[in-house]
Amino acid sequence: MEMIRSTQQTTLSKAVYRARLEALRQLMKEKDIDAYLIVTDDFHASEYVGDYFKCRAYISGFTGSAGSLLVTADDAGLWTDGRYFLQARDQLDGTGIRLMKMGEDGVPSIPEFLSEVLSSGQSLGFDGRTVNAAYADKLHKTLLKKGIRFVDQYDLAGELWEDRPAFPAGKVWVLDEKYAGKSRRDKLADLRERMKEEHANYHLLASLDDIAWLYNIRGCDIAYTPVVLAYTLISQDRAILYVNQEAVSEDVKAELTADGVELRSYLKVYEDLKALKGPFSLMYDEKTTNVALVSAIPNQIKKIHCINPTMTAKAVKNPIEMENIRKAHIIDGVAVTRLIYWLKKAMAESEGRKSAPGPGRTQESCGQTGAAAARTQESCGQTGAAAARTQESCGQADEITELTVCRKLESFRKEGEGYLEQSFSPIAGYGAHGAIIHYDPAEGGDIPLEAKSFLLLDTGGQYYTGTTDITRTISLGQLTEEQKRHYTAVLRSNLNLAAAHFPQGTTGVNLDVLAREPLWELGLDYNHGTGHGVAYLANVHEGPNGFRQKESDGTLGAAFEEGMLTSDEPGLYLEGKYGIRLENLMMCRKAEKTEYGQFMRFETLTMVPYDREAILPELLSGKELARLNVYHARVFELIAPYLTAEERSWLEEETRPF
Amino acid sequence: MEMIRSTQQTTLSKAVYRARLEALRQLMKEKDIDAYLIVTDDFHASEYVGDYFKCRAYISGFTGSAGSLLVTADDAGLWTDGRYFLQARDQLDGTGIRLMKMGEDGVPSIPEFLSEVLSSGQSLGFDGRTVNAAYADKLHKTLLKKGIRFVDQYDLAGELWEDRPAFPAGKVWVLDEKYAGKSRRDKLADLRERMKEEHANYHLLASLDDIAWLYNIRGCDIAYTPVVLAYTLISQDRAILYVNQEAVSEDVKAELTADGVELRSYLKVYEDLKALKGPFSLMYDEKTTNVALVSAIPNQIKKIHCINPTMTAKAVKNPIEMENIRKAHIIDGVAVTRLIYWLKKAMAESEGRKSAPGPGRTQESCGQTGAAAARTQESCGQTGAAAARTQESCGQADEITELTVCRKLESFRKEGEGYLEQSFSPIAGYGAHGAIIHYDPAEGGDIPLEAKSFLLLDTGGQYYTGTTDITRTISLGQLTEEQKRHYTAVLRSNLNLAAAHFPQGTTGVNLDVLAREPLWELGLDYNHGTGHGVAYLANVHEGPNGFRQKESDGTLGAAFEEGMLTSDEPGLYLEGKYGIRLENLMMCRKAEKTEYGQFMRFETLTMVPYDREAILPELLSGKELARLNVYHARVFELIAPYLTAEERSWLEEETRPF
Repeated sequence: MEMIRSTQQTTLSKAVYRARLEALRQLMKEKDIDAYLIVTDDFHASEYVGDYFKCRAYISGFTGSAGSLLVTADDAGLWTDGRYFLQARDQLDGTGIRLMKMGEDGVPSIPEFLSEVLSSGQSLGFDGRTVNAAYADKLHKTLLKKGIRFVDQYDLAGELWEDRPAFPAGKVWVLDEKYAGKSRRDKLADLRERMKEEHANYHLLASLDDIAWLYNIRGCDIAYTPVVLAYTLISQDRAILYVNQEAVSEDVKAELTADGVELRSYLKVYEDLKALKGPFSLMYDEKTTNVALVSAIPNQIKKIHCINPTMTAKAVKNPIEMENIRKAHIIDGVAVTRLIYWLKKAMAESEGRKSAPGPGRTQESCGQTGAAAARTQESCGQTGAAAARTQESCGQADEITELTVCRKLESFRKEGEGYLEQSFSPIAGYGAHGAIIHYDPAEGGDIPLEAKSFLLLDTGGQYYTGTTDITRTISLGQLTEEQKRHYTAVLRSNLNLAAAHFPQGTTGVNLDVLAREPLWELGLDYNHGTGHGVAYLANVHEGPNGFRQKESDGTLGAAFEEGMLTSDEPGLYLEGKYGIRLENLMMCRKAEKTEYGQFMRFETLTMVPYDREAILPELLSGKELARLNVYHARVFELIAPYLTAEERSWLEEETRPF
Repeated sequence: MEMIRSTQQTTLSKAVYRARLEALRQLMKEKDIDAYLIVTDDFHASEYVGDYFKCRAYISGFTGSAGSLLVTADDAGLWTDGRYFLQARDQLDGTGIRLMKMGEDGVPSIPEFLSEVLSSGQSLGFDGRTVNAAYADKLHKTLLKKGIRFVDQYDLAGELWEDRPAFPAGKVWVLDEKYAGKSRRDKLADLRERMKEEHANYHLLASLDDIAWLYNIRGCDIAYTPVVLAYTLISQDRAILYVNQEAVSEDVKAELTADGVELRSYLKVYEDLKALKGPFSLMYDEKTTNVALVSAIPNQIKKIHCINPTMTAKAVKNPIEMENIRKAHIIDGVAVTRLIYWLKKAMAESEGRKSAPGPGRTQESCGQTGAAAARTQESCGQTGAAAARTQESCGQADEITELTVCRKLESFRKEGEGYLEQSFSPIAGYGAHGAIIHYDPAEGGDIPLEAKSFLLLDTGGQYYTGTTDITRTISLGQLTEEQKRHYTAVLRSNLNLAAAHFPQGTTGVNLDVLAREPLWELGLDYNHGTGHGVAYLANVHEGPNGFRQKESDGTLGAAFEEGMLTSDEPGLYLEGKYGIRLENLMMCRKAEKTEYGQFMRFETLTMVPYDREAILPELLSGKELARLNVYHARVFELIAPYLTAEERSWLEEETRPF
């Protein structure tokens, strides 16, 4: 899945949002706040946030997953980026909120805007728990010298939100060491070594994927991301996990306690930080620690800024994780391969083609939940909106729509061993929808498929054995020559990056051009990164590894190390026509060591055929053809054993050498 | 030429250096200096420096072109990088100076070392004119808080140096607008616009290539680099050029004055800076302005750090420069092509091969200076050590050595229109010498060539129409299969980078992998950048464009713009065996504009055939073969008209399609 957040549909009247905005202004007046900022983050700078945290959408009606609302007594603006200009324009129309198009000429940043409209003695309010310390620091630097006051203790939107969803409190469960590959004792010991190196007495960790990884725990507080809402504070002899106590069973508590982890209530972290007595030092990552936490740290404690050591530690998968992830990709590859066969057959039937096989199992597995899904729900005690949405209309008519495909794919995934849930809201864009990079058919645009053009299908699963993320672009019938040329160019991009062989120390910024050059050659390009890191049964996007033209801080980013798992997903998007993206996950491996250094390579883990009908083999070089044939042979070898005879004979044909 | 400085031979006894070191310590004692630092730079942070400035070599005996000498009462260390470890070890042995291997584990940087050995109240001395402000700032940051004093007004080495070469004072000459393409009035007007944008009342410019470009003047104060030792101070209504008055003829003075340029003596800049009265602002580039200049700026003047606007302005060649540079490369290509034919023929003859043509013109043009060379010397009034070195042994026996080849090549270049001098000391490495990246046969290692293996020949010329820099690796006879495989891999690297087609905004860090991947594929690599910017009749190395894996500041560097001239010079170096490098200069050009943006491409300007005998065409893809054939056809088309019938028929054979 390319690294763009999903959105949620809005249906309320614009009058509702105008009323909420006025109510917010009333509260601001009462609390002597001149400008109030509502950002998108939860208290942990998570990429995906639970419904409880969607205050900005509640007030403004704008549901894009990136954007900040700023309200003053007589003005209101919503800052978002190019991905959301159209959506924001429609959703904000009639609300009295102006769209501020980030990155366009003449549009000030929020700090710039504030430093213009606020004068000395006036105040900026926000909920400090939702603003990361790095961004708060930026605001401070711009506004303190202007004499602007900061009021960061009020969640004003929360005060207005009557039917606010409950604070997430899903059951916490333990990820067995046979999956995690390393005990929490060992992970804590490593982390404490790093703390010593940084001369830090304490480490405050607020990012949820790091906490889940460190303690080998998982939960269901955020859709698609099985992490637990928690903070942790670690010293050389203590490790305190701040978590909703009701979410932790006695068994889990006992296991954590046995490993020296103390449990305290989620909110207690603020008090405990305030009570710290110096002279001590405390390290934390400014970008993933909210400013309310940082403000709670007493002055006599020396603050050390760091990149969370767990970020790199968890990005480098251990050998057991690596082996598990390979298994997850075979299980997931079986599901996606079966889906493609099912879809192609169904489309052929709907065209009444003589040669197509019978309807077979189209309906048979729809509506079943599978053992794995039952297990997930049992431990979490909630189903989540996404799961409910997937089920609701299953068993409908013959017509195949974007959503039908998503549901069918999930039904195949549920048959797979160790499947828990989807790793993100599926992107299934048919025809012109495929060109909308963040398209989500569950948001109301669902359309039926026809036996022509492409379906872009970007989905993933959470398994005990890891997280998958795969995109295939599927030909549903006759393709034009241009469609085939474009598909073949994206295929070359995908294959060539996967074939990279490079010395240790090379980063994704160095390698990105290997994916882009086959498109650049034709004057084409795509406006997103080429790949992102993927966690183990947690966030489908993680750092520090990735492929892009430059990092947001202008540097080259992290060098690839053995065990890093990264997506390879070049694409091409023709507005109003179709979109093509091909995505595999690749594990970085050591290759040979020569006198020029340790060389590295990628092992492609995703195991699903490319679309044979869309490939023009004459456009591939000899090396590229060989890469394609080797990959297809491996797909057949690993996937065929799990298929029916009918599916297998189709796959054999799909993967035969060009 | 890859971006590594050249060295100069040392012959004196080690006792001489021990005595100089002791004399330096005596002076330090007299002036109450506890540690004294001698760096490599002249007063302008030039890459190449005149002999007058070689204080570090005078005291230490180490002649490498990068390295700093630090002396205390009882210790002395020479910091240099990996390129010079062997040379420095030999040259420092017996001098009492320790070799400090930069970048190796446990070796402190100079600021780190100083902060350990000096205590509060002690002093660090250096000649502030030789230390750039950015580095001085780094020293200050580390040492001021330790209570270390700075004494930056003494050139102690200069006080000891009895037979110091004269301060350079070569004649200044004007580069006609038909070469420069833009008047100094227009360049000054553009610069003043940029000063307004930066809110700078003054701009202090100390880097010599920027000054030469800005005023369309050239000189001969530094070997291979026809710039003028000067400073300049610019405001909206004045432009003062600080330069040795004796070096400027009345004609040149009149021309400059007519364009509003005031001339003052070279040293007057320090006084004028001290006399500036606020409240004004002054902008300068910390990396190319020495700290003595910066110290002279009064406190009430606001300092604005900038990258010199002229750096980018001169990197982007104007249309007239572009057209001139194309011509320079044809003229230069003729000389190098003729050299290759001459050499191959001579080597074949020396092997007594029946098929080889007669001795022909081997001796005939050796020893001649040519009209162009005479012109250069006339206007400069000095020949320079390098020019003298080239002449001294010409006219010797039949034996062809590395130096013979350099002299022969220069004799061919001198026949070319508008040739002035070499653009750097030629690198001509035969066999194992080719693997020494900064090898210079003029330093005493000159050996005869044999009719086997490779000669790596990296040379360049300064022409009125531009600066050239070309490397060809020439087969002198039978090659091994490994040699051919390696040559072909480097050829693929060179061709593939040249074929890049990319959207505006892309940098050399993004593209570098296109050159490396063909070598990485085989577990091979080279330990230098892939390419550097090239000036117009000035420095053979200039910024900001280049191809490398990362910039020294960790960023991606400058995006390519139309008119930027950059070398493409991948290589491969097998210690003790041979070296291969292939270098062409390429001009960045706009390609088509598509809905994905403005695309860019490179126009290869260097016109000399690759070595047919060294190429294994079966290792090239269809696209690569096509690139090679297209290039060779163009070489023949452009170069053949300038050749004798004999040379032409050889070139036709060399460039026929594979």
